[in-house]
Amino acid sequence: MLATLKRILIGRPLKSNESKSQKLNKFMALAVLSSDALSSVAYGPEQILLVLITVSAAALWLSLPIALCILVLLIALVLSYTQIIFAYPQGGGAYMVSKENLGTYFGLTAGGSLLVDYVLTVAVSVSAGTDAITSAFPALHAHSVLLAVIIVMIITILNLRGLTDSAALLSYPVYLFVLMMFLVIAAGLFGALTGHVAPVHPHTQIGTPVMGIGLFLLLRAFSSGCSALTGVEAISNAIPSFKEPAPKNAAKTLLMMGGILAIFLAGIVFLSYWYGIRPISNQTVLSQLAQTLFGRSIFYYLIQAATALILVLAANTGYSAFPLLAFNLARDKFMPRPFKVRGDRLGYSNGIITLGVASILLILIFRGKTENLIPLYAVGVFIPFSLSQTGMIVHWIREKQKHWIPKLLTNLLGALICYLILIIFFVTKFGQIWPVLIFIPLVVLIFRKIHQHYLLVADQLRVDLSTPLRTVNTKDNIIIVPVAGITQVVKQSLIYARSLSDNVIAVYVGDSPEAIARMEKEWKEWKTEIRLVTLHSLYRSIINPLNKFIETVKWKADQTGSTVTVVFPQFYTKKWWHSLLHNQSGTLIKASLLRRTDVVIATVPYRFKK
Amino acid sequence: MLATLKRILIGRPLKSNESKSQKLNKFMALAVLSSDALSSVAYGPEQILLVLITVSAAALWLSLPIALCILVLLIALVLSYTQIIFAYPQGGGAYMVSKENLGTYFGLTAGGSLLVDYVLTVAVSVSAGTDAITSAFPALHAHSVLLAVIIVMIITILNLRGLTDSAALLSYPVYLFVLMMFLVIAAGLFGALTGHVAPVHPHTQIGTPVMGIGLFLLLRAFSSGCSALTGVEAISNAIPSFKEPAPKNAAKTLLMMGGILAIFLAGIVFLSYWYGIRPISNQTVLSQLAQTLFGRSIFYYLIQAATALILVLAANTGYSAFPLLAFNLARDKFMPRPFKVRGDRLGYSNGIITLGVASILLILIFRGKTENLIPLYAVGVFIPFSLSQTGMIVHWIREKQKHWIPKLLTNLLGALICYLILIIFFVTKFGQIWPVLIFIPLVVLIFRKIHQHYLLVADQLRVDLSTPLRTVNTKDNIIIVPVAGITQVVKQSLIYARSLSDNVIAVYVGDSPEAIARMEKEWKEWKTEIRLVTLHSLYRSIINPLNKFIETVKWKADQTGSTVTVVFPQFYTKKWWHSLLHNQSGTLIKASLLRRTDVVIATVPYRFKK
Repeated sequence: MLATLKRILIGRPLKSNESKSQKLNKFMALAVLSSDALSSVAYGPEQILLVLITVSAAALWLSLPIALCILVLLIALVLSYTQIIFAYPQGGGAYMVSKENLGTYFGLTAGGSLLVDYVLTVAVSVSAGTDAITSAFPALHAHSVLLAVIIVMIITILNLRGLTDSAALLSYPVYLFVLMMFLVIAAGLFGALTGHVAPVHPHTQIGTPVMGIGLFLLLRAFSSGCSALTGVEAISNAIPSFKEPAPKNAAKTLLMMGGILAIFLAGIVFLSYWYGIRPISNQTVLSQLAQTLFGRSIFYYLIQAATALILVLAANTGYSAFPLLAFNLARDKFMPRPFKVRGDRLGYSNGIITLGVASILLILIFRGKTENLIPLYAVGVFIPFSLSQTGMIVHWIREKQKHWIPKLLTNLLGALICYLILIIFFVTKFGQIWPVLIFIPLVVLIFRKIHQHYLLVADQLRVDLSTPLRTVNTKDNIIIVPVAGITQVVKQSLIYARSLSDNVIAVYVGDSPEAIARMEKEWKEWKTEIRLVTLHSLYRSIINPLNKFIETVKWKADQTGSTVTVVFPQFYTKKWWHSLLHNQSGTLIKASLLRRTDVVIATVPYRFKK
Repeated sequence: MLATLKRILIGRPLKSNESKSQKLNKFMALAVLSSDALSSVAYGPEQILLVLITVSAAALWLSLPIALCILVLLIALVLSYTQIIFAYPQGGGAYMVSKENLGTYFGLTAGGSLLVDYVLTVAVSVSAGTDAITSAFPALHAHSVLLAVIIVMIITILNLRGLTDSAALLSYPVYLFVLMMFLVIAAGLFGALTGHVAPVHPHTQIGTPVMGIGLFLLLRAFSSGCSALTGVEAISNAIPSFKEPAPKNAAKTLLMMGGILAIFLAGIVFLSYWYGIRPISNQTVLSQLAQTLFGRSIFYYLIQAATALILVLAANTGYSAFPLLAFNLARDKFMPRPFKVRGDRLGYSNGIITLGVASILLILIFRGKTENLIPLYAVGVFIPFSLSQTGMIVHWIREKQKHWIPKLLTNLLGALICYLILIIFFVTKFGQIWPVLIFIPLVVLIFRKIHQHYLLVADQLRVDLSTPLRTVNTKDNIIIVPVAGITQVVKQSLIYARSLSDNVIAVYVGDSPEAIARMEKEWKEWKTEIRLVTLHSLYRSIINPLNKFIETVKWKADQTGSTVTVVFPQFYTKKWWHSLLHNQSGTLIKASLLRRTDVVIATVPYRFKK
């Protein structure tokens, strides 16, 4: 049943050597790995306007210089990450770079914040995607949380099916979105030039002085806008998913993505300003812009659909990155080993499932509200950004490769910008992002504890291969056979036990002196060379006296160094429902014995034929 | 956790030899075993009136001659059962008597209908008890089903605690009820003589001709009234619960009970007639009578409380009888063996729990309506009544003891009356009691099937004690050790396996040629005398290749008659949550191996110390 359901949802198991075919070419990679960054334009510009509107509508023109700063930042980040891709072609991103150059703890901090961040990627993108849908269909607004949860589930299942399957399926909507955005920008600019599109509100002149605006608010708007930069690092973490030459393909993809993102960002911010769009609840800024340009025509709905789809696919970026990072952390013994196991379809199923469950939890906790999730998301992104830039600085200083000074300067610039932004975050949004200060150290602590455990275990498991294994066949193993009476089942177990050792003890637990006497008499009558020990159970429990007896024997055996084995006779009825007609005491005793960690438990099956 | 809850609800486990102290003296027995019969006056008279009122209020005087017939029937039944008590002092009642004298099938029919009947005893008594409560407190009427279910649960728990514990606790309400009924009858007769109590309605003269009444309706009223006789058989089924001399004590208790019941029945029917009480919904006849005599005074509420309590205790009769009968049937291999097992408090827990669950189901199905349950209940009682009377006739004819002829005649009379009543039942109430005709044969069929299974199993288990057991210590057992690598855990298992046999095979399942080559190299480096077999798993599953390998080895072993043992190395982490950090594949493989019924599975535990 469960197996069939799994097969339908996830597909047939793949052989391990089918792994090669799962690599991505540049265009597939752009679809799978860039959707996070590109889709950020659906909420990034809006976050800037949301802060500025708190002052006045006149302040909205300030989004233009803020966007310019963000563009500079974007260029710095793309350049930095290009360098990281070539320096670390095996992937791993911020985690690898920080760990190698700054040491384990910084690496773990980067890794921990990235893991948290991928969960937020999924939560934010799906929430924003749901916003795009409910902007177009207001009736769905009341069900947005449910909608978001269902979308996460679908993405999870698609990812369990395997990466290229998903990529092939998912690449069209990304290109559709890119096309639609270019259309919006082209139509917007054409409208602005010809003046035949009526703005929602008149826009204020650039440079108009704004009452009541201070540096704090400007910085806050800027830091909110930085959420448009999330997802830039995804490509550098997923280099092993690229077709060879992987680093070169990855770098090209990154540049392609950076260019498109810059155009989108600049375009959307400018047009929002030009057409005087103000952020309102129930409809996104992008939706308002599309409506202004095209009305509620087929184009409008196509734009909303493409936006929703790419945001959904942005969540998919997390599904490429999270399991891979979890694998790297597990390989380095900082996360539980199950994250290293490939599933039936060669994806790291445990990572995929963990990500899906965690993002659903986040969506439920934040009731699917994008603007509440974004500050955590952005700060979570800039911690690893900063760490990997810093790591690269150390890298260049250590390695001193050809042309290392300009490379160093690039990363130094990137690092400085990132630190500045982090400081701005903590100054302007501390009330929303303090959980990060608790959560990330906690994650690092857990990583550490896990690591210590694995080292301890490895130490205890180690075998010295240079010492040959000396073994000997002995007749002195002590074997205990619990017997409930003299039956064929018991007889078979006794024969088996005797075949292994000369030292077999049959144990009978009786709940009355009469039962014990009867058993002893029958045993005597039956000629065996096996000693019978009888125990009196005052409370009709067989498990307790038996366990006490085993302990006594084990204690004696420990003195002489013998091993103790309990040979447990177990019958299997022909039909499963027949077993309802027999006392379950056998099963209970077996379960209790199997919990013992001091003796060997051997179950000898006896199958009824009738 | 569960164990603690169980301890609180049920009490500490009792030793088997504490069993003797659980015997009942006469007065205790009257409380525990007679409550069913005595409490029948709470619904029996009402059932007669419910039929008569369908004709007219003038017909109600006919309840007097009908009650007279029922009294005659009661005397006949008490006499018959007194004889059964002395003839079958080991108890078992209708089942034992019918089986011994009429043969197995009649015995099973009696046993099956009694089992069903005990469930109905609980359901009817608790429903009627709930009626008594809701008569006094009409606000509870809407929750009567819930109330009934909770009451059944409480009785079940009390019974799991043990018989005398309950008896001591429960005897007072029975005596309170007896006292209260005598008070009602005394006050009623006094009122009737002095005429100072106003009747609800004027009563018609005895002998007034009634329009529209026919034999069918009279018989129907009579058969409804017979529900007042349910529970008379309980004492004869529970003789082993009495203190010695058990049969004599039981017979005295039966006579005592018969006398009290006769007085109550006659009294209630007469007074209901005298005070012109008519059956209505929402208030029982007994409640109306009490209200007429005492108003809504403290006496009224005391009577209702005593009635509710004794009905609840009547349910308890089922809890004495059902598990004992189930034990007898299980001992004779007609019911599953678990019904033979005594629980922690020496009660037959499985019987008690089965009864509790079944009665709750019945209450839910019939929505707690007493009058719908009663026809099934009454017919279920009279089938075993008839069978045991018939059985006794055969008994006397066979044994021909001293004074056997009057004894024969007593039982013959009893039998004739019972058959007559059964015929009346089927003629007048077929629409309500037909399920009995399906259910009882079905139960008998199941009994039969269970019996056949036990005979087959016994046959397969039988060991010829006269043939001595010849065993030999051999070195040829084939032992398979699945190994995941070279670790201390594996090393320990290999040493153990080699101590048992010269024929040990280590098996490694690898998911890549590289992993296999590495393992083979390390194995070679490590000098052992043990052969390593490596298997390539294409789908990363270890279980499937391992199982296939075991099957191949087993097939070869079957040719030479060797046994195959799988020695499974298993490590246990120091803290339980450490195990979350390790692949659960070991546990999965172990679970899969333990399902095999063709080879011995030995688990060798290895405990981490750190």
